[in-house]
Amino acid sequence: MLLKRWLVGLPLKTAQAVHERLSKRLALAVFSSDALSSVAYATEEILLVLVLAGTTAISASIPVSLAIIGLLAILTMSYRQIIFEYPNGGGAYIVAKSNLGDWAGLTAAAALMIDYVLTVAVSVAAGIAALTSAVPSLFAHREALCLLAIILVVMVNLRGVRESGKIFATPTYVFIGSILLMLLVGLAQFVLGQSPGTLAQPAATPAAVEGLTVFLLLRAFSSGCTALTGVEVISNGVSAFKPPEPKNAAITMIGMAVILGTLFIGISLLAYQYGVLPREDETVVSQIARQVFGGGFFYYLIQASTMMILILAANSSFAGFPRLASLLAKDSYMPHQMQIMGDRLVFSNGIVILGLFSCLLIVLFNGDTHALIPLYAVGVFLSFTFSQAGMVKRWLVKGGPGWRQKLIVNGIGAVATGIATIIIASTKFLHGAWIVIALLPLIIMWFRAIHAHYVAVHEQVALTRDHRPPPPRRNTVIIPISGVNRAVVRAVDYARGRAGDIRAVMVNVDKEETALTQIKWAQWGCGVPLILLHSPYRSVMRSLLEYIEDLLDKDPDGWVTVVIPEILPAKWWQNILHNQRALMLKAALLFKERVILTDVPFHLER
Amino acid sequence: MLLKRWLVGLPLKTAQAVHERLSKRLALAVFSSDALSSVAYATEEILLVLVLAGTTAISASIPVSLAIIGLLAILTMSYRQIIFEYPNGGGAYIVAKSNLGDWAGLTAAAALMIDYVLTVAVSVAAGIAALTSAVPSLFAHREALCLLAIILVVMVNLRGVRESGKIFATPTYVFIGSILLMLLVGLAQFVLGQSPGTLAQPAATPAAVEGLTVFLLLRAFSSGCTALTGVEVISNGVSAFKPPEPKNAAITMIGMAVILGTLFIGISLLAYQYGVLPREDETVVSQIARQVFGGGFFYYLIQASTMMILILAANSSFAGFPRLASLLAKDSYMPHQMQIMGDRLVFSNGIVILGLFSCLLIVLFNGDTHALIPLYAVGVFLSFTFSQAGMVKRWLVKGGPGWRQKLIVNGIGAVATGIATIIIASTKFLHGAWIVIALLPLIIMWFRAIHAHYVAVHEQVALTRDHRPPPPRRNTVIIPISGVNRAVVRAVDYARGRAGDIRAVMVNVDKEETALTQIKWAQWGCGVPLILLHSPYRSVMRSLLEYIEDLLDKDPDGWVTVVIPEILPAKWWQNILHNQRALMLKAALLFKERVILTDVPFHLER
Repeated sequence: MLLKRWLVGLPLKTAQAVHERLSKRLALAVFSSDALSSVAYATEEILLVLVLAGTTAISASIPVSLAIIGLLAILTMSYRQIIFEYPNGGGAYIVAKSNLGDWAGLTAAAALMIDYVLTVAVSVAAGIAALTSAVPSLFAHREALCLLAIILVVMVNLRGVRESGKIFATPTYVFIGSILLMLLVGLAQFVLGQSPGTLAQPAATPAAVEGLTVFLLLRAFSSGCTALTGVEVISNGVSAFKPPEPKNAAITMIGMAVILGTLFIGISLLAYQYGVLPREDETVVSQIARQVFGGGFFYYLIQASTMMILILAANSSFAGFPRLASLLAKDSYMPHQMQIMGDRLVFSNGIVILGLFSCLLIVLFNGDTHALIPLYAVGVFLSFTFSQAGMVKRWLVKGGPGWRQKLIVNGIGAVATGIATIIIASTKFLHGAWIVIALLPLIIMWFRAIHAHYVAVHEQVALTRDHRPPPPRRNTVIIPISGVNRAVVRAVDYARGRAGDIRAVMVNVDKEETALTQIKWAQWGCGVPLILLHSPYRSVMRSLLEYIEDLLDKDPDGWVTVVIPEILPAKWWQNILHNQRALMLKAALLFKERVILTDVPFHLER
Repeated sequence: MLLKRWLVGLPLKTAQAVHERLSKRLALAVFSSDALSSVAYATEEILLVLVLAGTTAISASIPVSLAIIGLLAILTMSYRQIIFEYPNGGGAYIVAKSNLGDWAGLTAAAALMIDYVLTVAVSVAAGIAALTSAVPSLFAHREALCLLAIILVVMVNLRGVRESGKIFATPTYVFIGSILLMLLVGLAQFVLGQSPGTLAQPAATPAAVEGLTVFLLLRAFSSGCTALTGVEVISNGVSAFKPPEPKNAAITMIGMAVILGTLFIGISLLAYQYGVLPREDETVVSQIARQVFGGGFFYYLIQASTMMILILAANSSFAGFPRLASLLAKDSYMPHQMQIMGDRLVFSNGIVILGLFSCLLIVLFNGDTHALIPLYAVGVFLSFTFSQAGMVKRWLVKGGPGWRQKLIVNGIGAVATGIATIIIASTKFLHGAWIVIALLPLIIMWFRAIHAHYVAVHEQVALTRDHRPPPPRRNTVIIPISGVNRAVVRAVDYARGRAGDIRAVMVNVDKEETALTQIKWAQWGCGVPLILLHSPYRSVMRSLLEYIEDLLDKDPDGWVTVVIPEILPAKWWQNILHNQRALMLKAALLFKERVILTDVPFHLER
């Protein structure tokens, strides 16, 4: 408990859950880390695919990047409409469920859950890659560093991130500023034709192993689409903005899209200009920064702020996942425990579960960003598509002023993201997307199974108008004993306070012990009869259970109350010195209908 | 449960515990495996020490072996007297405790417990060494094979070894016969000057690294003393003999000692005669057998029967250890659970614990006999010394016909084993005996701590003449609820059957839920008042506990009965879908004085 207090902090009152209202400047910092941080790896992932067709194919990275920026523009316009339509937060689960029905909602939710886990894994892996690019000696330990980072983020989130706005602002704006500086300096150097750094060329120029086919271009596009993950985050958090909330949120989102587009195309251009090739042990951004700044303060600033924003991106999932899980739990699609807010006003269960799953992914994929990327984006784009399709349906049903125009915007969004989803799923299928596609139906089935269970429980325990309380039933009280002592006397004393047929029961294992107990019982039994049970197999448990079953059979409407005199030691470790019979008996009886267990404790003082 | 039945067998009735009475021939087989099997490694351990002084020092193995046989003669005479004096079984614990007091008894018991664990580990390791000598390809897997053998022995013992006599007879007599045959053929070959086998010489003749000092001779003697482990076993089992029990037991023990002495000196002689040197991958007995028989049927018979008798020796500890543990538990020096006879009339807890500890030893020492030997024998000889010293005290106190003569015999025994103990402990101290010497006081302290606890418990729960049952106390019944459903209605219904102040208690976490519950309560509450608790930290548990503590404080003589309506799912895995609050509440309340827990179950059907 003390350890928990130290790690997690003192509990917070419900009344302390004041919602910080964010200015546009702070909101951009809080909500954009997921989207902006993806520029740290998106260009690299495009190059990794194109280089398969040889170094000359690298030039295709520019049109591919432009196509992605086109998609970004469509997405921004579409989500702008969701912001105005769902000012209380329009996650894909809510939009899909409210417009397209439960199945669509659950599909979007399943896709989102996978996406949240992958965001943590990919962001942390890329963040640690930024670190190991700058400090190569840490490269061998990247898996351990990833796990450490996740544990850190989990702990911070269990404490609660109420002071979030200020914490997020500095690294986000440092990241944006330093990358912009790098782009400007890099472009200037290109114009002036000089550069302080020399690019570490790979040992051998990679040979083309494939032709530059349309399929390869589409694969490069799919990889690059990871740049768009997180664009939707602002639409989930509209209520956190200062009023007028929707308007401020929409402006912030457009601002974020512009920054994201600029950084992304800038990095792609510089990479092309310097002929940067992807390397296993150094990221593309690190290579560009080394080239532009030739090492030194600004290089390390780029690496440090990249790492920081990626860790913040991982952190953003720790807000999203538990909130989605609690929404699902409220609708009975997840265990109800996911709704419980812990001491620190956070959904602790969801945070811990997300931490565990993302650690699992890191271990399975050895903390390698490239290995995780093919799994990523499928889930994100699937949820985009469901959101947009939901909006299309909404305009069709609801109408309202200018609904045709809005329908067209979201329609374009739905078609574009739908096509992107198909492209991503098909070009990345064999590289890992199949895992996500196979998991989706399993998760949905799991949601439905949980729902079915809760519905069945409700039907069984709900009080209907015609439900009448049962008439008072006969009650037989039995007190299992193995000797006579103060604990037993106390239990008998307590049991006599309730009307009913009371008897003590002893299993005859040792004749001497039994005879002794009978003598003592005459003095201390208060007139309660003592029944001896025969036990050919020396099993106290079995004899008692058989006796209780007998009583239940004889009186099919009666209750059997088992009063257990329990001696509780003063120190927990002393428990191993006492027969665990009381515990075993309780465990066995808990599953019997009409048996009521009553523990009468006798506490030892030493 | 089914698995257990298949592995362990059907339960046996207490009445089925008929004690098989053993003839001298069967008793020799049952009780001598521990003693006889040690000839499989004793000679080798002597040679391993002597070879440190070079190959010429090997000749010292004959006088060392003769000294050990002298000690064997003294031991046999001394134990013969214990047999007649303790016809119901005279283990070191009983003899030391009854004559020298509790501390001596506990010291002997601690030494014996260590000894039992080591007997299993050493015997199994040596048995597997016999196997890997014959099948060298298994050498790499010896650790796994040791563990497998222990698991097998544990399982056999959990089934119970009622049919023991017949099972033991064949391998024991085959072992005695085949070793005797080897000795005869070997001696004949020596006289005739021919031998079919050629000894695989070690790559290099080992150089002398030490002089043949007195210390080295004493160390060799210490190692050889492992041959005497198990000599005392017959004295523990006198009651299993056919009448006249003590006489038959004494004759059997003398017969066993003669066979043991013959096999041991014979193997030492043959090893010397053939110039056998200890090798890591082949035992000395295997080398001799290969030399004498030149491989073939008789060689494999020797190896197989050696392995068998060593496994039987390990098995004998599984009879001794649990019996000693149950004796100690009866005297409250071990947890009382050690007294419980399982389904198959064996002390299952002791068997499992011995298995676990011996597996631990095998893993720690990589299944290597030589590494384990220095730990062995210290415990055995310490218990020998305590037994003999106890007998000396007994004759002094008790007298009786010919007590002077008996005193002298046991006196010689006590002095001889005492000196041997000191020699073993000092010469082997650095090689591992220190572990045993350090463990002894810890185990004794543990015995005393357990004893002190049981005494304290007895003092607190025992009923004294002046103990009067307390007057009937006031009882407040509370029913914690989080809503109204059939389970709650059932609990209220049950609670109303007992006189007392009844109230339902709800923690106000969610205002809507609370209001709904209040409305329903008006209809279903049967007039029981519903009390709402305020919870600033949303912690249902904490609010409930505070409320209960309040009630306890207000009425220092009253009882608080907590009636918990518990919904029990139809399938165990569904438990994760229900709030674990009931379980947590029960765990928290179990440790409160004057709080009585009552579980009213509501079983779901699907």
